[in-house]
Amino acid sequence: MAGQKEMGSGVEWKIRVADGSSETLAPQAAGLAGRVWLGLKNMIAGFVLKVWRFLEKAWDLGADDPRKVIHCLKVGIALTVVSLFYYMRPLYDGVGGNAMWAVMTVVVVFENTVGATLYKCLNRVFGTILAGLLAVGVHWVAVHSGEKFEPLIIGVSVFILASAATFSRFIPSVKARFDYGTMIFILTFSLVAVSGYRVDKLFDLAHQRLSTIIIGTSLCIIVGMVVCPIWAGRELYSLINRNMDKLANSLEGYAAEYFNQSEEEAHKKLLDYKCILNSKATEESMANFARWEPAHGRFNFRHPWKQYLKIGAAMRSCAYCIEALNGCINSANQGPEFIKKHLSSSCLKVSSDSSSVIKELAKIIKTMTKSSTIDLLVGEMNNAVEDLQNDLKTLSGLFNPEDETPENNNETQKTSLKTTTEIPLLGVISVVTFASLLIEIASRIEAVVEEVEKLANLAEFQVMDQCKSKQNQASTEIVPADDQNDEDNTIKTLEKV
Amino acid sequence: MAGQKEMGSGVEWKIRVADGSSETLAPQAAGLAGRVWLGLKNMIAGFVLKVWRFLEKAWDLGADDPRKVIHCLKVGIALTVVSLFYYMRPLYDGVGGNAMWAVMTVVVVFENTVGATLYKCLNRVFGTILAGLLAVGVHWVAVHSGEKFEPLIIGVSVFILASAATFSRFIPSVKARFDYGTMIFILTFSLVAVSGYRVDKLFDLAHQRLSTIIIGTSLCIIVGMVVCPIWAGRELYSLINRNMDKLANSLEGYAAEYFNQSEEEAHKKLLDYKCILNSKATEESMANFARWEPAHGRFNFRHPWKQYLKIGAAMRSCAYCIEALNGCINSANQGPEFIKKHLSSSCLKVSSDSSSVIKELAKIIKTMTKSSTIDLLVGEMNNAVEDLQNDLKTLSGLFNPEDETPENNNETQKTSLKTTTEIPLLGVISVVTFASLLIEIASRIEAVVEEVEKLANLAEFQVMDQCKSKQNQASTEIVPADDQNDEDNTIKTLEKV
Repeated sequence: MAGQKEMGSGVEWKIRVADGSSETLAPQAAGLAGRVWLGLKNMIAGFVLKVWRFLEKAWDLGADDPRKVIHCLKVGIALTVVSLFYYMRPLYDGVGGNAMWAVMTVVVVFENTVGATLYKCLNRVFGTILAGLLAVGVHWVAVHSGEKFEPLIIGVSVFILASAATFSRFIPSVKARFDYGTMIFILTFSLVAVSGYRVDKLFDLAHQRLSTIIIGTSLCIIVGMVVCPIWAGRELYSLINRNMDKLANSLEGYAAEYFNQSEEEAHKKLLDYKCILNSKATEESMANFARWEPAHGRFNFRHPWKQYLKIGAAMRSCAYCIEALNGCINSANQGPEFIKKHLSSSCLKVSSDSSSVIKELAKIIKTMTKSSTIDLLVGEMNNAVEDLQNDLKTLSGLFNPEDETPENNNETQKTSLKTTTEIPLLGVISVVTFASLLIEIASRIEAVVEEVEKLANLAEFQVMDQCKSKQNQASTEIVPADDQNDEDNTIKTLEKV
Repeated sequence: MAGQKEMGSGVEWKIRVADGSSETLAPQAAGLAGRVWLGLKNMIAGFVLKVWRFLEKAWDLGADDPRKVIHCLKVGIALTVVSLFYYMRPLYDGVGGNAMWAVMTVVVVFENTVGATLYKCLNRVFGTILAGLLAVGVHWVAVHSGEKFEPLIIGVSVFILASAATFSRFIPSVKARFDYGTMIFILTFSLVAVSGYRVDKLFDLAHQRLSTIIIGTSLCIIVGMVVCPIWAGRELYSLINRNMDKLANSLEGYAAEYFNQSEEEAHKKLLDYKCILNSKATEESMANFARWEPAHGRFNFRHPWKQYLKIGAAMRSCAYCIEALNGCINSANQGPEFIKKHLSSSCLKVSSDSSSVIKELAKIIKTMTKSSTIDLLVGEMNNAVEDLQNDLKTLSGLFNPEDETPENNNETQKTSLKTTTEIPLLGVISVVTFASLLIEIASRIEAVVEEVEKLANLAEFQVMDQCKSKQNQASTEIVPADDQNDEDNTIKTLEKV
């Protein structure tokens, strides 16, 4: 700014000369020109760098999840088709009138998942029909009650219906299923009721508008379902699968980290559980959209999507406990090594057993077959929990030298315990907290097991052995191999959503 | 169904007779008629009951938060005004053309909070302008490149721009600020590019469309800001305040519950913290909308809204730990009474001190003044934590009868300890876990304190004493009394959102 001001008051001339002969300039002028040039260069470089970073980020986004790019191309295709369709004017005369509703429908209705698109399409069509009929009725009444009352009736009806419909959008059950339809209802009702047309012309108009909307929605549904469809139901299913794997990883990782047996691999996965803490909103919207979807892949029309929400909630309750484990790891009062050692094997056993249970649950969901080993694994986990509780009991022996001491409590340790008699329990707190949180997590995992078993019953998963024997009888309807691969790919590509 | 069929084949007649003389009917017919009547009655009653319950729920919703009702009335007013405005046709000829954009704008743009409305209005206006200019340019090029190339150029440009714009909606920074604008951009671009009009007519059209949109958005902004405005910023502020109170309540409640000192009042508030676990999405959207709002109440235009998100995250981290406390309360291994008693006073002290700190933080935010006592309270909380740690230390003395025993460990207790030497530590686990989670919570509260202090610096809160002395000098600009009351009312009415 200061440089620019000086430039304006005479120094500017020097700079112009400088274009031809920069060597002859006085140092001050060269400095000024240089500074201006530098400033400009920096500004441009900064701008280019910013744009470059933005593009880089966008590229990463696309590379991480190519399905997003495919979705964009799908929108492009649908919109180009509908645009050119009307540009060529084979059906109506010009775009000014109703044809724009088809273009608008495609823009507004095309969503990432099939379920969301269907939800918006059906809401749009039925919202329009309902509001149109009602508006034609009100319009008829208004026209027949004389010039004076006409605007009054229309005004009052718009006011009442718009207010009531807006209010209904606050009601959770309406919001979940008909939020968009309600908005379209208000829109169509006001437009039709307010239009100055005669009722017989209105029917023509309504017919045209509805047909253009149906053309738009059909196009969206066809493109959405035919070109690389993304099903909300499968997204939800993959999300739950992914979160289960993450829960298992985090659980193993934390125990390993706490007892210093963490490998680099495990350390990376430590914070995987954080995703679960915040996935509630995504799960709910996916479940809402999934129920609009027809049967696809291995999912029926009436697949119990709501049960996935319960599984998600149960997993989240585990994740909260893992978040509390975090505190133990960062705690300044790390327990003395020998006590940690005393509990490490049983703690690690509990964590690895619980994580096996979760992995088995993930397998149940992935293969959509009931597991014959899950009860065994839960039993093992509970045994590990009991062992841990026993180890905690023997820990009390450590504090009571008169008792018989457990095997891994040798003379030196006892001495160190006696000399530092003030520290032990305080030092032990972190280990005991860690262990008891593990026990709590194990009990919360049982809740997850229950929810998954409910899902297996509701969705009528087959028992693994039955399934195998059926497959041997050349029936591949339950887990077709390529669908399975497809599923794995989906999960991989979803990894970074 | 079966009953209806039988009715059709002769039995119907008997029923008609029954209307006059029900006593004379054969028992079977009476049974049938009765059953049909009962079925119908039940169906109608069921339907009426369902509708009644729905209305009841809706009524409760409105009674709990009258601002929702006000919002609906506001939408009704805005829509009626714009509808009648066009119904009277003072500006344009008929609604068929561009006037509908004004109605549509009001329906689509009017949101619950001022911030959301402003966000949508500005996005709509600028999205339309940008897309309109670009589309006119593309249209001009297409028209001038001959009949053959015209549809090709238009199709390709629609495809590329629609795909690119759709992709940009996936980029988080674009999504947060310009999601709606991008959609409007795609919509306007396709509509204008595809329209068969000549360029000079297009300018007329664009002018009309833009002016109707501006009329619609202005009406929304005026009604939204003048009639009982709901500010997204204030909503966020109240949400954080409310959550802080809930955190304090839950914390106190849990300690009281665990040590059986819970009053009925406290028990009700126990699960208040659950709201905090799931408030992330609301907080983020409110913060996103708040930055579009002009200065209002005690908030400047550039109020540091993002800092509230950090405070929210810090509080959530506390809430996760409280969720883990839950496990201790439900734990089967409740510690023996005398050990619980040993720790109860210090645990209760920690919980009440932490909750005082949170209450003081809430006060800082509510009054928007720096507190002079917060450091003192944090110090007290830390002292209480130290006392608790000391009590945990003396607990180790309980296991070591050679040590001097603390005062509240009398002879009988020692005996009971010795006889049940296997149980204590296992029984103690729950208490120790509870205590160490309390300690962890206290340390997480310090993180909340830090974030609130950052907010106080960023938003330039005044020191309480300065503030008072200023007020004594008849300057009421900082905490005007009625604004304060207004705030309290807002918080009260928001209580059930």
